Amino acid sequence: MNTEKEDKLVIGVGGRAAGVNGNGPTKLVDPLEDPVPGVGTYEDFNTIDWVREKSKDRDRHREITSKSRQSTVALLHSVSDAFSGWLLMLLVGLMSGALAGGIDISAHWLTDMKEGVCLNGFWFNHEHCCWTSNETTFQERDRCPQWKSWAELITGATEGPFAYIVNYLMYIVWALLFSFLAVTLVRAFAPYACGSGIPEIKTILSGFIIRGYLGKWTLIIKTITLVLAVSSGLSLGKEGPLVHVACCCANILCHLFTKYRKNEAKRREVLSAAAAVGVSVAFGAPIGGVLFSLEEVSYYFPLKTLWRSFFAALVAAFTLRSINPFGNSRLVLFYVEFHAPWHLLELAPFILLGIFGGLWGALFIRANIAWCRRRKSTRLGHYPIIEVLVVAGFTALLSYPNSYTRMSGAELISELFNDCSLLDSSQLCGYQQVSCVGNTLADRPAGPGLYTALWQLALALVFKMMITVVTFGMKVPSGLFIPSMAVGAIAGRLLGVGMEQLAYYNHDWIIFKGWCSPGADCITPGLYAMVGAAACLGGVTRMTVSLVVIMFELTGGLEYIVPLMAATMTSKWVADAFGREGIYEAHIRLNGYPFLEPKEEFEHNSLAVDVMRPRRADPALAVLTQEGMTVGEVESLVESTHYSGFPVVVSQESQRLVGFVLRRDLLISIDNARQRQEGVVSASQVVFTEHAPSQAPDAPPPLRLRGILDLSPFTVTDHTPMDITVDIFRKLGLRQCLVTHNGRLLGIITKKDILKHMAQIANRDPDSILFN
Amino acid sequence: MNTEKEDKLVIGVGGRAAGVNGNGPTKLVDPLEDPVPGVGTYEDFNTIDWVREKSKDRDRHREITSKSRQSTVALLHSVSDAFSGWLLMLLVGLMSGALAGGIDISAHWLTDMKEGVCLNGFWFNHEHCCWTSNETTFQERDRCPQWKSWAELITGATEGPFAYIVNYLMYIVWALLFSFLAVTLVRAFAPYACGSGIPEIKTILSGFIIRGYLGKWTLIIKTITLVLAVSSGLSLGKEGPLVHVACCCANILCHLFTKYRKNEAKRREVLSAAAAVGVSVAFGAPIGGVLFSLEEVSYYFPLKTLWRSFFAALVAAFTLRSINPFGNSRLVLFYVEFHAPWHLLELAPFILLGIFGGLWGALFIRANIAWCRRRKSTRLGHYPIIEVLVVAGFTALLSYPNSYTRMSGAELISELFNDCSLLDSSQLCGYQQVSCVGNTLADRPAGPGLYTALWQLALALVFKMMITVVTFGMKVPSGLFIPSMAVGAIAGRLLGVGMEQLAYYNHDWIIFKGWCSPGADCITPGLYAMVGAAACLGGVTRMTVSLVVIMFELTGGLEYIVPLMAATMTSKWVADAFGREGIYEAHIRLNGYPFLEPKEEFEHNSLAVDVMRPRRADPALAVLTQEGMTVGEVESLVESTHYSGFPVVVSQESQRLVGFVLRRDLLISIDNARQRQEGVVSASQVVFTEHAPSQAPDAPPPLRLRGILDLSPFTVTDHTPMDITVDIFRKLGLRQCLVTHNGRLLGIITKKDILKHMAQIANRDPDSILFN
Repeated sequence: MNTEKEDKLVIGVGGRAAGVNGNGPTKLVDPLEDPVPGVGTYEDFNTIDWVREKSKDRDRHREITSKSRQSTVALLHSVSDAFSGWLLMLLVGLMSGALAGGIDISAHWLTDMKEGVCLNGFWFNHEHCCWTSNETTFQERDRCPQWKSWAELITGATEGPFAYIVNYLMYIVWALLFSFLAVTLVRAFAPYACGSGIPEIKTILSGFIIRGYLGKWTLIIKTITLVLAVSSGLSLGKEGPLVHVACCCANILCHLFTKYRKNEAKRREVLSAAAAVGVSVAFGAPIGGVLFSLEEVSYYFPLKTLWRSFFAALVAAFTLRSINPFGNSRLVLFYVEFHAPWHLLELAPFILLGIFGGLWGALFIRANIAWCRRRKSTRLGHYPIIEVLVVAGFTALLSYPNSYTRMSGAELISELFNDCSLLDSSQLCGYQQVSCVGNTLADRPAGPGLYTALWQLALALVFKMMITVVTFGMKVPSGLFIPSMAVGAIAGRLLGVGMEQLAYYNHDWIIFKGWCSPGADCITPGLYAMVGAAACLGGVTRMTVSLVVIMFELTGGLEYIVPLMAATMTSKWVADAFGREGIYEAHIRLNGYPFLEPKEEFEHNSLAVDVMRPRRADPALAVLTQEGMTVGEVESLVESTHYSGFPVVVSQESQRLVGFVLRRDLLISIDNARQRQEGVVSASQVVFTEHAPSQAPDAPPPLRLRGILDLSPFTVTDHTPMDITVDIFRKLGLRQCLVTHNGRLLGIITKKDILKHMAQIANRDPDSILFN
Repeated sequence: MNTEKEDKLVIGVGGRAAGVNGNGPTKLVDPLEDPVPGVGTYEDFNTIDWVREKSKDRDRHREITSKSRQSTVALLHSVSDAFSGWLLMLLVGLMSGALAGGIDISAHWLTDMKEGVCLNGFWFNHEHCCWTSNETTFQERDRCPQWKSWAELITGATEGPFAYIVNYLMYIVWALLFSFLAVTLVRAFAPYACGSGIPEIKTILSGFIIRGYLGKWTLIIKTITLVLAVSSGLSLGKEGPLVHVACCCANILCHLFTKYRKNEAKRREVLSAAAAVGVSVAFGAPIGGVLFSLEEVSYYFPLKTLWRSFFAALVAAFTLRSINPFGNSRLVLFYVEFHAPWHLLELAPFILLGIFGGLWGALFIRANIAWCRRRKSTRLGHYPIIEVLVVAGFTALLSYPNSYTRMSGAELISELFNDCSLLDSSQLCGYQQVSCVGNTLADRPAGPGLYTALWQLALALVFKMMITVVTFGMKVPSGLFIPSMAVGAIAGRLLGVGMEQLAYYNHDWIIFKGWCSPGADCITPGLYAMVGAAACLGGVTRMTVSLVVIMFELTGGLEYIVPLMAATMTSKWVADAFGREGIYEAHIRLNGYPFLEPKEEFEHNSLAVDVMRPRRADPALAVLTQEGMTVGEVESLVESTHYSGFPVVVSQESQRLVGFVLRRDLLISIDNARQRQEGVVSASQVVFTEHAPSQAPDAPPPLRLRGILDLSPFTVTDHTPMDITVDIFRKLGLRQCLVTHNGRLLGIITKKDILKHMAQIANRDPDSILFN
């Protein structure tokens, strides 16, 4: 009955012919050596095929293992290959930790530079400058003769309105200078160095290729401009960019090891770990970093990487710690240790903070995306330098008069998180001194200092909320963690002080009675600030476990996990009610990156046949036949289309699928054959079968291309629901998938088709997706 | 050219027909209501199809969402459905926390019961009994008149050899009684309650069905017998069984919610979280628990579950904490807080401990598996009660004279972890008092008490190492964490004291000079104990990140992560050199559970065609055709084979694949049709096509079975390398996969085939795999 003569059953032959390294098991050719250079590589802005890359790595591993039994050198090679991953992790940890330390120190110095200079040497920051001074007491450590404010240096005046104005002006000038330098450097040398980098890294980890995004220029420029941008006083943080910096380090160090240099999938394993390293050094939270990488950025995270990420994150944290940039043997400025317990009823204000965080997160995402879209579509986008200068100038102008906006974001958070000790001279601790023994710190009424601080904080809150919307997304490195946390911390501290005063003046209320026993602290405003910070950060990024763990590592007490969790969960639920996307997903969508969200379920009930190409009205799918086509025919087919790959079928009539061949591989191989192989002309037959067909004696020799044919293309049937298909794409990291009906090839679905289909369902423009 | 008339292209028809709920999008039938009862369910000892289960859940979700727009009741239903997962997590946390608290308290009481009884009431344990006594000082809190040892109660003698012998005998009698009760209860009511349960839970989470393994009887009996087994003094812990108990709670609570009751995949999400809960209450480590679940037991862990696991783990930890079973407001007996720093050079002994842990882990696994195999294959297995009694009697006999083996495992670990404070009366702190002011605790020479303690510890080490091998795997609930940690802690403490004495007597050595400054503690033997415990546990279970995080949560200091990590990593590398399996994987293999290890890479370079059935010599694959077969033919085909499913093809000649139908669904549907549908007889045609074919007018009505046909079966080509195929099975959770060559159906690969193939490659007996 079977009339198709081409159909040769080859069961049991066992020819290893999948992927690009088609070598029979008996004839072992070195799979590290590409038969044709370029075959199996990717172009820029393309999506990798995870299955192919993993398969390549397995072949490589098998090769090394089998060789290792032959000689001692090969055995050593095999051992060094096995440990190269660990060595690479160690190097990534060391380099990222050192860079983070350098960034912290430089940013600290430049930030202080805006206010004054050290006479002992301009390279000392304020604190360092006064360390050498012996005469300062603990209270006055900030004032030492060696440190001169700009007014003092220029005019000699230390007090009075004139000195204030001079300092104010110098502050603005420095801010403008730093931001100008930052944006010019970014534009001149490394345009990829702007922004936080996390949306792009998420996309890269999902399999996209953006050449240069993690290169050495990006690393150098991002490191320098990050310091400048943070020092300029703009409302941005260094946490997101640190993740980018760590990923750059990892990518550059990958070039030292063949295993990682040549394999895009293996390299992404390292990048996953590098993301953990970035957060680890940003917050001094190695476990939180690993969970962040797992929850937020990783796409294809084998558990093997978990352990390596943890190792790298720890190495980085210890490197940073031995650099000790803050002089407090902590990794972050805002490490706190609370000791007061919290009361169950306090969950109500914590949940309130969660609602605030969620609302702010949702609002911020909408406003920021609207602003960024405006920047993309209007003339605003043509003047990035002016934009940065205007925002920086405006920020400096408004933030100088208010001490809470003048200080850096991390300092602000540190101050807000802190509990008031008796010695504390901060305005936030400006309570009236109730002098009765035994009642050391509990239940104090607010004094005038605190009221002033509250006013300033309220103004700072409004200012930060506004300015962050326009700052995030500008053409300078900008992280979002610190500004979000600052907003939340201010709101939390305000609520905390409010609760405290409520409890003080109404301690006879029933709810406060059991809770605020006299002589003991009853409300810790610092804890409210921390909960608020977590809530706002959660609302913006939609992180959950990792956020709680980061905060836990900042406080080091399991007791506060419940408040943090209550606030984070509320914040996420509230924010999700307004839109399920976090800020990074929103930016990915805004930029049209081909990112298939791994967390979201595909809800629509379409089938594979509804998504595949060609559509019903379109011309038939462009296919190659396994024999019978000439080089010329193949070339003209390839040139007349723009597809990145072509299915190979038994014959045009039967449409039975044999394999899949990539455009790039096809073109490279044909070019190569024309140059090197004798007699290959346009009339030569292209043969994908195992055995060459019989030809006329005078015909030119055939071009055999089975080597580049993927003999195991993924197929689904036309009736496969799209939710399953999307799952397959996500889980296996496919690039394309062929669609069959009853064994006949019908069409093809690519990642791009899926993304377009999803955009269509969500009533978005399907052509907004950047691809190829 | 296409001569196959059966081949009807139905592009664009869009009939939603995959899975068992084949409903067109226009005609929405309630997918919760099975058309034929029983279709889509599984038999015992079968593997679930994750794709099908997830697809079912998505259909259900879509149905509820679309209904929710119609009425308020439906909207409320939709909201309650969305929150049911969280509610379930809350309940699991509360129930598991409460049970863990109960187990802790009862085990404590029964353990003390072996030594004596409280006159105020036999239900008081030793500590509780003496709380009510006012006359006891802090030093003598263990001795109060209300607490009578058995010798005192029976003979009135408190001291002397006679009293000792009476106490000794009573100790053995109680141990025998408890262990007898435990093993009889297990055998009589719930045979699944024995062992640690973790290997089985791993298998269940990977998709296997073992009915009753997580049922209410198992829960009740496991809880009771766990208390008895721990109290009997056997060398076992409660941590593994607690995971089983938590999973039982989760499984039982799942029955309250339709969403989880009816869907095997959704239920496994909850079980994953329950595993986290179990470890959370066992170690008071919620984050460690979540990571344990992620790293060790989970198979198919959607990130959504991460957050829920964390929530449940926290709830459980707080429930346990409010029960406060140890009276120290900690969740575990062996919580410690170290304050002394460690020196970089100490990494050498830590790595030594890692090597010890790895060696012991590898040795333990081999010895235990050999012993368990002996139990399975020889007459030993026929007398489980006698075995338990002999081991319990032997344990009691040998452990009573040595105070370190007499105390429970958790108490021992707690004592070994502890640092010596000045007030400590423990033998381990029997240092010579060097009375010079200022030199409070540093650098003390060992006294005779300590030497005795060291001897006892050395004996305890040997004893524990031996007895644990025969204990783990007996027919009582038995966890491995505590005995492993105890072995490691003893070894670590011995090394720690050794190092301390070395440093004391040779403080002029160069290596000690910079490190042991006079007047400060230079070596913390407790830290060595902790590192040793981590190393041994790591060697046995091969846990990595989760182990370090659990230990970190026990100490609460980031400083000790590096020693812990160094030891754990060394231990894992050393143990892996002797065999890559941890104890749980080894037991899974021993019992032949169909578990496809997600962590191990498939190294062999075979192809799908080498693994698929039928083999070359076998008869052709049993297939159904989409039309033309009668009910009688189908029934005889089904009865003549034992396959669990049959591919459906267009025609026997073309072998073009249409879909896949499960044996169980087929039989149930035919039975159902014969009973209910009029005129369905053996001669009726079975039709899998969309449109009924034309028939002779006198023919019986056809039986239409497209509803049970899976129209989207997974296929791979015969050339697909097995490593890719195994990856697909693991990632997508497949049960079977069809193999095609150039569009024709060739064969089928099931999970069983893959496991058999892997066993064959590893030179194991492929028939050892239990399946169906």
